[in-house]
Amino acid sequence: MKALEEKIRREGQVRPGNILKVDSFLNHQMDIAFINEIGKEFKRLFADCNINKILTIEASGIGIACITAQYFNVPIVFAKKKQSINLDGEQYTTKVQSFTHQKTYDVILSKKYLGPSDRVLIIDDFLANGCAVNGLIEIINEAGATLEGVGIVIEKGFQDGGKEIRARGINVKSLAIVKSMTDHDIEFEEQDS
Amino acid sequence: MKALEEKIRREGQVRPGNILKVDSFLNHQMDIAFINEIGKEFKRLFADCNINKILTIEASGIGIACITAQYFNVPIVFAKKKQSINLDGEQYTTKVQSFTHQKTYDVILSKKYLGPSDRVLIIDDFLANGCAVNGLIEIINEAGATLEGVGIVIEKGFQDGGKEIRARGINVKSLAIVKSMTDHDIEFEEQDS
Repeated sequence: MKALEEKIRREGQVRPGNILKVDSFLNHQMDIAFINEIGKEFKRLFADCNINKILTIEASGIGIACITAQYFNVPIVFAKKKQSINLDGEQYTTKVQSFTHQKTYDVILSKKYLGPSDRVLIIDDFLANGCAVNGLIEIINEAGATLEGVGIVIEKGFQDGGKEIRARGINVKSLAIVKSMTDHDIEFEEQDS
Repeated sequence: MKALEEKIRREGQVRPGNILKVDSFLNHQMDIAFINEIGKEFKRLFADCNINKILTIEASGIGIACITAQYFNVPIVFAKKKQSINLDGEQYTTKVQSFTHQKTYDVILSKKYLGPSDRVLIIDDFLANGCAVNGLIEIINEAGATLEGVGIVIEKGFQDGGKEIRARGINVKSLAIVKSMTDHDIEFEEQDS
């Protein structure tokens, strides 16, 4: 998605530790008009998939998933990162290691909201080592639901998460794939439109 | 908002400890078509306010804020509940006690995304003791921004957060105000439409 690559080049900031800050439009402040363009692009890329639910994980995936869901006319469900007294015992659980927070946390999803009849599109803001997406895939498998695809806004192509998930035959589409980044340049992988 | 009251009566579950579970449509699974109706209602209620930014707090406020922002044509910014290596030192911070998680956590917002030129609508899913909204108001004051109003989906009218914030002259609109709730009945306060 060229407009996204240009926005990342214009507004993104590269920080030590392979951090790409895009919090001016994607995951702290959110440019809602632009997130709508992202949602339309996910709809274009997954138009042939028979999706009836979008799954994401709190926190920064939620807004992107909600805007995107409007183009699929489906509900979303977001996995929660820690036990809450608002969730009863009937839940799927897995563990995810956070690249950003450098810790491992529990991820939970109420069994009421994912089951064998669900055909799921996973949406998230970043894909790096793939821990979050793999945790969501575990939950989909535990639920007996069908994974239709994975839609990522920004993939760090120099980390292995995306390659490993695609190698398992999963349909992963990333709107921008960062090939390399330094504090003065960000290179993207060429993709078929 | 009658449609919301009916949905809460139909789908809400009352749990011990004054917990109202609405995770079938609002804060775990999200009924995006219905959240759009909520966004339209916030626009109707705050149509006279000159809002240029919506502020919320992760996690469950984010999706509601994003959908609502489409009706105001403004960006959102969401406060984050814990330190992340993706946020540099230039941030507003406050502490909030969580009713749901029964703990106190730090709330942070990058100074880049809130300042004196911002006229802010706070959006959140629940208002109970008011801790989260008060934390956001502290951040708005620290930023020198203008608070135009507070839009809440469900207020627990039997707790004092809303009363206290209104008593300070702040324009708080809640789409449903729960007067009382038991496991077999939920009563709402009458409101002017």
